[in-house]
Amino acid sequence: MQQTNILVINSGSSSLKYSLLSIQPQLCLMSGLVECIGEQLAHHKYTVDNQASQQETLTIKDHADALQQVFATLQTCSAYQSQPLLCIAHRVVHGGERFSAPQLIDDAVIEAIRELIPLAPLHNPANLLGIEQARRQMPDLAQIAVFDTAFHQSLPDYAYRYALPGFLYQDHGVRRYGFHGSSHRYVAGRAAQYLDKPLSALNLISLHLGNGASVTAIAAGHSVDTSMGMTPLEGLMMGTRSGDLDPGIIFYLSRSLNMSLAAIETLLNKQSGCKGLCHENDMRTIHQHAGDGDLEAQLALAIYAYRVKKYIGAYLAVLGRVDALIFTGGIGENDAWLRAHCLENLHGLGIDLDVAKNQTPDAEVGNIASADSRTAILVIKTDEEWQIALESYQYLKKPGH
Amino acid sequence: MQQTNILVINSGSSSLKYSLLSIQPQLCLMSGLVECIGEQLAHHKYTVDNQASQQETLTIKDHADALQQVFATLQTCSAYQSQPLLCIAHRVVHGGERFSAPQLIDDAVIEAIRELIPLAPLHNPANLLGIEQARRQMPDLAQIAVFDTAFHQSLPDYAYRYALPGFLYQDHGVRRYGFHGSSHRYVAGRAAQYLDKPLSALNLISLHLGNGASVTAIAAGHSVDTSMGMTPLEGLMMGTRSGDLDPGIIFYLSRSLNMSLAAIETLLNKQSGCKGLCHENDMRTIHQHAGDGDLEAQLALAIYAYRVKKYIGAYLAVLGRVDALIFTGGIGENDAWLRAHCLENLHGLGIDLDVAKNQTPDAEVGNIASADSRTAILVIKTDEEWQIALESYQYLKKPGH
Repeated sequence: MQQTNILVINSGSSSLKYSLLSIQPQLCLMSGLVECIGEQLAHHKYTVDNQASQQETLTIKDHADALQQVFATLQTCSAYQSQPLLCIAHRVVHGGERFSAPQLIDDAVIEAIRELIPLAPLHNPANLLGIEQARRQMPDLAQIAVFDTAFHQSLPDYAYRYALPGFLYQDHGVRRYGFHGSSHRYVAGRAAQYLDKPLSALNLISLHLGNGASVTAIAAGHSVDTSMGMTPLEGLMMGTRSGDLDPGIIFYLSRSLNMSLAAIETLLNKQSGCKGLCHENDMRTIHQHAGDGDLEAQLALAIYAYRVKKYIGAYLAVLGRVDALIFTGGIGENDAWLRAHCLENLHGLGIDLDVAKNQTPDAEVGNIASADSRTAILVIKTDEEWQIALESYQYLKKPGH
Repeated sequence: MQQTNILVINSGSSSLKYSLLSIQPQLCLMSGLVECIGEQLAHHKYTVDNQASQQETLTIKDHADALQQVFATLQTCSAYQSQPLLCIAHRVVHGGERFSAPQLIDDAVIEAIRELIPLAPLHNPANLLGIEQARRQMPDLAQIAVFDTAFHQSLPDYAYRYALPGFLYQDHGVRRYGFHGSSHRYVAGRAAQYLDKPLSALNLISLHLGNGASVTAIAAGHSVDTSMGMTPLEGLMMGTRSGDLDPGIIFYLSRSLNMSLAAIETLLNKQSGCKGLCHENDMRTIHQHAGDGDLEAQLALAIYAYRVKKYIGAYLAVLGRVDALIFTGGIGENDAWLRAHCLENLHGLGIDLDVAKNQTPDAEVGNIASADSRTAILVIKTDEEWQIALESYQYLKKPGH
């Protein structure tokens, strides 16, 4: 029997998200989330075999414990009982310039992921915890790393280089890497299916708007520019991150407010964005407040939409011709107000929204452009886990493996 | 006799640029530049009454000395002998939120310019030196301050606010101010004359590309967005400044390279941009090197053009409809290669260059768009001094003064 079941693991610093996916047929067999690892009480939520979701509160002292929970749950899954796993696929945030494709994990790959920690000090160590525990607990199983940066390794140098001295790039890896690669890649594929054209014939602008947010310009299936940079701080305004910012502000905050660099880093990553502007980072709450006349909430929404619009324009210029804009991520998929305001007044650039369709786009994939719009405007439900599983599957099925 | 002669002074930290302009008729009567103030040997170059340019090497110990040179030269100018000055107009870099128009200088205005020093620590103190010495040496003459930021005070809040906690704006003035206001305002006016339409009927994108560089989106004559931010570091790549940058890079340089914040500030302001990428900040030299096969010079040009193009796209989206793009500043006016590369592949957005016209645009104002282009593409020689003189004149002639 052909094995096509893949366990996808996304290991964060205090959480671990997982799902068991079947490639053929395309099914989600199990999914779960362990939160508050290392705290007094952790939570484990999961769904197996399409049964009702279960929730347990227990002590989970580390990632080894968390993975034991995952594997114990796996044992109860009928699909796992009838068919062994093909592999475990791990989401890894930063693959640097080394990894532009999925990679079979061995000691050298683990070492390479460790060497990239300075570029992703919060994420790569947490990803490694999941990888190392999974290898320990399932030593005979193939484990694949899928990198959030890999999709963007196709950027041309004039898009990925900063205007900084060359040695910072050559010796220290200072360049644009971009993130959310699996999500951008996934929705690009879905857009091609929906439009019934080969991805290689399409120019796309993909807007992943979630807690983190990024835009990617995709030419013929390849990422050619993206708004996140060397770190996930650059680009769009986000839930708690500032996004684009005059770098001079950092020197001003240090000099005039006497803030430490560590305090400024926390400010820009955790206390800025929506939260900084209006004390909230949940978009639904912000809309409520804005509706109640809260001027700060109204301003946060206006800035958010305005900055998305500017990136759409920039990437229109980069791509020359755009076949479809794609909205995805929690906000992109659900926030009709925001979509409408990002696209206001773009008729002249060939982008024209159907106001009614925008209110209730079709599930999974919907086109909300008017009949006049030169550019399709798609709302697509993203599925990073599926993309990670699919790429791992394709990697293992390639001749030579 | 109506007085319309205005002495314009642009006082830098070690240089002082000046010109004597007649508003009616529109004439340049005298112009000069004092350089290396405070060094062992200073240089004073000037032209009076359209005579051949003169150059003196002498000791100029401070700005008081420099202004004495200016006033001594003024005495030799026949236009000054026949007509006293209407006023002295001073360029002031930072007017904060306080100044959105020219201002008659008194003690309170000087104090306000001084209070803005934290926002422009290099420029405002140098501007004040010129103002204070000019007042001392010509105490009975009206002195007007014209601010580089003033034109951009019309930005809407969603364009000038950063996605940062509100108190940084309310209590500490952290917002986008923008610079090069007199240049953007001047070329917008010239564009309207050239296109024979009222400025209020035009949407423009003005690209001031010189040693510093900025782009401005102008709707109906008002600046609605601009690429420089709270400081002149944000936006386009420049001669020695990085322009836009992932703010996360600053934390990385501090943590991984152990650089001090002062060293990083110097790096981004003085050792980045063209100079950082290819060790040169003179565009003509960079073109020579690129032509000789220097890959770093080629990359610097490619990045420069690419980033201009992205701003053009962003501001197309902001403005919805654009009547003309304007290239100005030393590079914008003279670099045909760069203009062509900024505009490559924008036909779909209504911007189409006439390749032959681009090589030799008309002097002063030339349209280099093809007959098919929906958007005019103008090359306009900027004249910030003239704009400063004109605004000072209009200010003094307004009823109430």
